[in-house]
Amino acid sequence: MWSLPASDVVLYGLSLVALTAQAMTAALAAGKRSMDWAGVCMLGCITALGGGTIRDVLLGHYPLVWVQHPSYLLLTAGAALATILIARVVHRLNTAFLVLDAIGLVVFTMAGCDVAWQIDPSLPLVIVVVAGMITGCAGGVLRDILCNDVPLLFRAELYASVSIVTGLFYSTGFGLKLNDELWTALTF
Amino acid sequence: MWSLPASDVVLYGLSLVALTAQAMTAALAAGKRSMDWAGVCMLGCITALGGGTIRDVLLGHYPLVWVQHPSYLLLTAGAALATILIARVVHRLNTAFLVLDAIGLVVFTMAGCDVAWQIDPSLPLVIVVVAGMITGCAGGVLRDILCNDVPLLFRAELYASVSIVTGLFYSTGFGLKLNDELWTALTF
Amino acid sequence: MWSLPASDVVLYGLSLVALTAQAMTAALAAGKRSMDWAGVCMLGCITALGGGTIRDVLLGHYPLVWVQHPSYLLLTAGAALATILIARVVHRLNTAFLVLDAIGLVVFTMAGCDVAWQIDPSLPLVIVVVAGMITGCAGGVLRDILCNDVPLLFRAELYASVSIVTGLFYSTGFGLKLNDELWTALTF
Repeated sequence: MWSLPASDVVLYGLSLVALTAQAMTAALAAGKRSMDWAGVCMLGCITALGGGTIRDVLLGHYPLVWVQHPSYLLLTAGAALATILIARVVHRLNTAFLVLDAIGLVVFTMAGCDVAWQIDPSLPLVIVVVAGMITGCAGGVLRDILCNDVPLLFRAELYASVSIVTGLFYSTGFGLKLNDELWTALTF
Repeated sequence: MWSLPASDVVLYGLSLVALTAQAMTAALAAGKRSMDWAGVCMLGCITALGGGTIRDVLLGHYPLVWVQHPSYLLLTAGAALATILIARVVHRLNTAFLVLDAIGLVVFTMAGCDVAWQIDPSLPLVIVVVAGMITGCAGGVLRDILCNDVPLLFRAELYASVSIVTGLFYSTGFGLKLNDELWTALTF
Repeated sequence: MWSLPASDVVLYGLSLVALTAQAMTAALAAGKRSMDWAGVCMLGCITALGGGTIRDVLLGHYPLVWVQHPSYLLLTAGAALATILIARVVHRLNTAFLVLDAIGLVVFTMAGCDVAWQIDPSLPLVIVVVAGMITGCAGGVLRDILCNDVPLLFRAELYASVSIVTGLFYSTGFGLKLNDELWTALTF
């Protein structure tokens, strides 16, 4: 499926950035509710890895990513803790933060489509796009449920739309067997 | 198991009605919280398909129904959107709505018992009834969690009772290998 | 793995106590929100069995415990109902209650580590500890979500810390293949 391994490496690097960014949004949300350090770590892990976990459970794709690579748990917990420590600086970096969050959403959606395709290439397009959307959005929904909010996803049209468009665009590229690297770049 | 296919067709038709009805309850709940169109679609899908999804994940029954039949996703999303458009009329149709909701609960419970039986006919009766109850009730619970309410299920005795009684009644019928069609009719 | 069966029996007995204790905490929480008897039963089952269920779903370990042993459902539902009946007495027994809850947390964490180990002895230590933590904590988190609270887990440092320390301590014991019975006793 991957004719150009470069695209794979880029996607892997981006997904580490996305994991970190999602854990940071969780830490900021947790900070507003005066959770302790353990709560921040857990909420960071759940937010960053929850989307992929729900996708894998729904598609029956075992073992889960973080069971195979426990380092992801440490990365996200570490990112969440670090965010608490530098919280004052981050508050001033709101714009950079929104950019990171958007990258996270797009990358997660692409990774979700990828995984769905690898599990079963004959899955219909709708399911691949939904798998991407779940990966991108479910982590944030879990974070909002645990923080006792109505999920942002359901109130901000932008999130879901971006995720669906990304998924459609990326999947179409795969469907047409275009040059992957070019397509990954275009999706942004 | 199905001696008379007529019962199967009736149950299938009823479950489409039930899916639509559950998606409509979700849309009405979403409307009260000023969610956007994407949120309404998603909440409709989650409410209508969530019960069956949780049942299948708990019983390890893959692939999930909506992965095999993506048209269910489109049906529920469409029903949720249509409800928003005709919301003014629906508000006056509260009685018809409660009837639809009750049909949804009963049909989902029967379908849940059915599926549990098909997975493993040796499952104990308690589990079959619980599987039916999860199918019937869990979608509404997810809807209430996402809308940040204490689930209606836990406050309204009626829901759970109806679901348990339906499950028991329907399962007993299967256990005694009675005429299915007659029994499905009787369960109402 | 179990050189001394006595430890197994002790752990089994303790886990029944833990199930009962967790169902009782759920019933007390439900009582404060004026849920009906069906809600109390369901919340009791979800709180007591939810942690193990989530662990098994995440690790792909089927069938679930309560599908194999439906008597657990009856035990927890019964415990929750009984708690409502004797609620006045229990309110005065707050200390005994906290002790039971702590036992529940420790026992569930140990049982969770155990199960993770039995599924795949080559799982890394981090995952075993996380599996124990999920078993011990997730039930209470589900209870708080359904009661529309920010989960206690994320606000009370103590819970998570106790669970992690227990898991680490217990897992290390297994890793070194020490005398199990002695180690189970030491973990308290």
